Amino acid sequence: MSVRPPIATEQLVGELHALAAISDCPEPPPAVTRIVFTETDRRAREYFISLCNAAGLVVRCDAIGNTFARWEGTDPTLPAVATGSHTDAIPHAGMYDGTTGVLGGLEAIRALQRQGVTPRRAIELILFTSEEPTRFGVGCTGSRTMAGALSPDDLRQLTDEAGHDYDTVRQQAGYKGSLSSVALQPGAYHAFVELHIEQGPLLEAAELPIGIVTAIAAPATMEFVITGEGGHAGGVLMPVRRDALVAAATMITRIEELAFQSGSPDLVATVGALDVHPGAVNSIPSRVRFTLDLRDIDGKNRDATLGAIDRATRQIADQRSVTLAARTLNADPPAIADPLVVSAAREAAEQLALPYQEMVSRAYHDSLFMARIAPTGMIFIPCRGGVSHRPDEYASPEALQAGVETLALTLARLAE
Amino acid sequence: MSVRPPIATEQLVGELHALAAISDCPEPPPAVTRIVFTETDRRAREYFISLCNAAGLVVRCDAIGNTFARWEGTDPTLPAVATGSHTDAIPHAGMYDGTTGVLGGLEAIRALQRQGVTPRRAIELILFTSEEPTRFGVGCTGSRTMAGALSPDDLRQLTDEAGHDYDTVRQQAGYKGSLSSVALQPGAYHAFVELHIEQGPLLEAAELPIGIVTAIAAPATMEFVITGEGGHAGGVLMPVRRDALVAAATMITRIEELAFQSGSPDLVATVGALDVHPGAVNSIPSRVRFTLDLRDIDGKNRDATLGAIDRATRQIADQRSVTLAARTLNADPPAIADPLVVSAAREAAEQLALPYQEMVSRAYHDSLFMARIAPTGMIFIPCRGGVSHRPDEYASPEALQAGVETLALTLARLAE
Repeated sequence: MSVRPPIATEQLVGELHALAAISDCPEPPPAVTRIVFTETDRRAREYFISLCNAAGLVVRCDAIGNTFARWEGTDPTLPAVATGSHTDAIPHAGMYDGTTGVLGGLEAIRALQRQGVTPRRAIELILFTSEEPTRFGVGCTGSRTMAGALSPDDLRQLTDEAGHDYDTVRQQAGYKGSLSSVALQPGAYHAFVELHIEQGPLLEAAELPIGIVTAIAAPATMEFVITGEGGHAGGVLMPVRRDALVAAATMITRIEELAFQSGSPDLVATVGALDVHPGAVNSIPSRVRFTLDLRDIDGKNRDATLGAIDRATRQIADQRSVTLAARTLNADPPAIADPLVVSAAREAAEQLALPYQEMVSRAYHDSLFMARIAPTGMIFIPCRGGVSHRPDEYASPEALQAGVETLALTLARLAE
Repeated sequence: MSVRPPIATEQLVGELHALAAISDCPEPPPAVTRIVFTETDRRAREYFISLCNAAGLVVRCDAIGNTFARWEGTDPTLPAVATGSHTDAIPHAGMYDGTTGVLGGLEAIRALQRQGVTPRRAIELILFTSEEPTRFGVGCTGSRTMAGALSPDDLRQLTDEAGHDYDTVRQQAGYKGSLSSVALQPGAYHAFVELHIEQGPLLEAAELPIGIVTAIAAPATMEFVITGEGGHAGGVLMPVRRDALVAAATMITRIEELAFQSGSPDLVATVGALDVHPGAVNSIPSRVRFTLDLRDIDGKNRDATLGAIDRATRQIADQRSVTLAARTLNADPPAIADPLVVSAAREAAEQLALPYQEMVSRAYHDSLFMARIAPTGMIFIPCRGGVSHRPDEYASPEALQAGVETLALTLARLAE
């Protein structure tokens, strides 16, 4: 086959924009909000499936909505090669995170079809359910469950803010099968490779079109609930207050200090969500809930900082006579990319004469869990300013094209 | 007339419970949420009006829903004596704040009727619209507008979180007249007296059934909006972050310090509401909005602390390279109770042999604004533990009865 797969870049960009328009964000596209198992999520999946059908792929869904679009190979008995990513988006996000790997994965398959490739192994394109933790507090529920890292019982215990549990919500969204049918056996796939925007500034700064991921950083997510004592803002004097929000504020500034003191330049700590109860101008906060996202390339260093944060927040709670309930939502080990996939991607980039660098992913991806059941790797493309999870997230058509070319060739190699 | 007005305490308590059941709070009564111009607010007003009608009072509403229930006097040409309070409630509030002065005011009138009193001046019972600032950020929109402290233009500029403006919302709630018709002239009322739970611990601690308010503390409300830079929690290293929530947390802890350092034991500072944008676990907060409620009996000391907070928050914003937009929602001067009302209440308590103390109100009331257009005073009754704005807010039937007796006699004296 000719080296350069013919990418329909304009069509791909158009499809990304069409998908971005399926959004619950009050701001117009490219601002996107797309929360798992909502009507908007359903419409986005419907759009994706219609594109897969048009490309002749055979589509099936599992019991939690992970969606598999299969291009059959000449030897259907062999484990397939897979690619994919997610289409859910946090509130006020951008239009490239996840979608690049889903629609870009589809375009990679279509380019190989156009090129007349007949793969020996089937190639499967996967849309993973809920990579983002927005609704249920835990990220990657789709790939986690496929990898056996979330059991059916774990899933049943997940609830959203309205108190609805995962099992009920996924059934209301139309996914009815048994939760125990979702987990896959190691070996189910020959390899998995995910195309994604970098979500960091390194490729742009190095003026490189391609990053080949060798490891994915280890994220930990915690939830803190502080209970103090409420009351009328005019009626309770300062010395007798047990204000849950001032306690939370003290913890948040301390967490920042501990992140700086960790000694690792790669350690990042983020308190991204915080709710105040009862949340009235003239009422002393009685309860505050906030989340912590802590990451480092070095899992040991991350866990050491997590321990320091745990001790510091307990001490602050004691000093302020508030109660603190902290729980770890996840603390996943890092993943190392498989040499099979890394070398296939490296050879693809070299064949395409696309300069690349090997790099670590500090963001979280479904690949982290796919790596537990399949040889896994990732291909990064630059995004403007390293910006992600914001409406101004942007990957140029040229960047998308280079990424999809590399993905297509990588898939073709792995499927040979 | 006999000294002791015959209070139907059981009926009053029953009516308070019936009103508490009209609530949007997800928790059952006595937890109450009742936000102005909602369907629940409408149903509460309807219940109140039905009770007034049953007592033979003539009910009218003004253009923003302030509701007046009039018991005509023998000389209708004289300015009336008024009492009243509010029925709106912040989220997860209790059942006595405001309602005690509305339904207690009604019971005071009914007790005088039972007693065969024929007042010379009319007695008007007022249900003020939206004493609580929950929906539009400003408290006492009803009494403020009556007192001319909020103009029709001011009202039109108030918007709720959904972006709906006050003028539209009040019309949708059925209040259609001209906004300029709401303001009253000074002299419209001969006197105004409000019955209220103390919302503080002093009366209970002193074992006194009655407090006679001589001054109402001066509250100030501010809103702070911090804009930093968002991004993916994994993608942006700590040193280059401009995290709006860490900036807000630093300000909140500093505000607490400044409140302690003010030197006034009566100064209280409360950050009661805080919203994070975009509010996702794995997204750096790009924008945080929070409110500040600052009160002191001494307006000068309050304004000095307000100035110190203003300087400190600007400095923190500069240090953290975030932008800060601060605006004052209100900074009202304190009100002094009128000797006419204070002495009438004092004589009433003495006639009833109810021990009392004169005291300052640190909470905010419609009386603060009625004092601008009428000789005004307040009667306090103890509430358990001084607790208010919480579901466990509680005033005993005995406390209610003593308060309503004192109110009834005070009204009778003022209407003579």
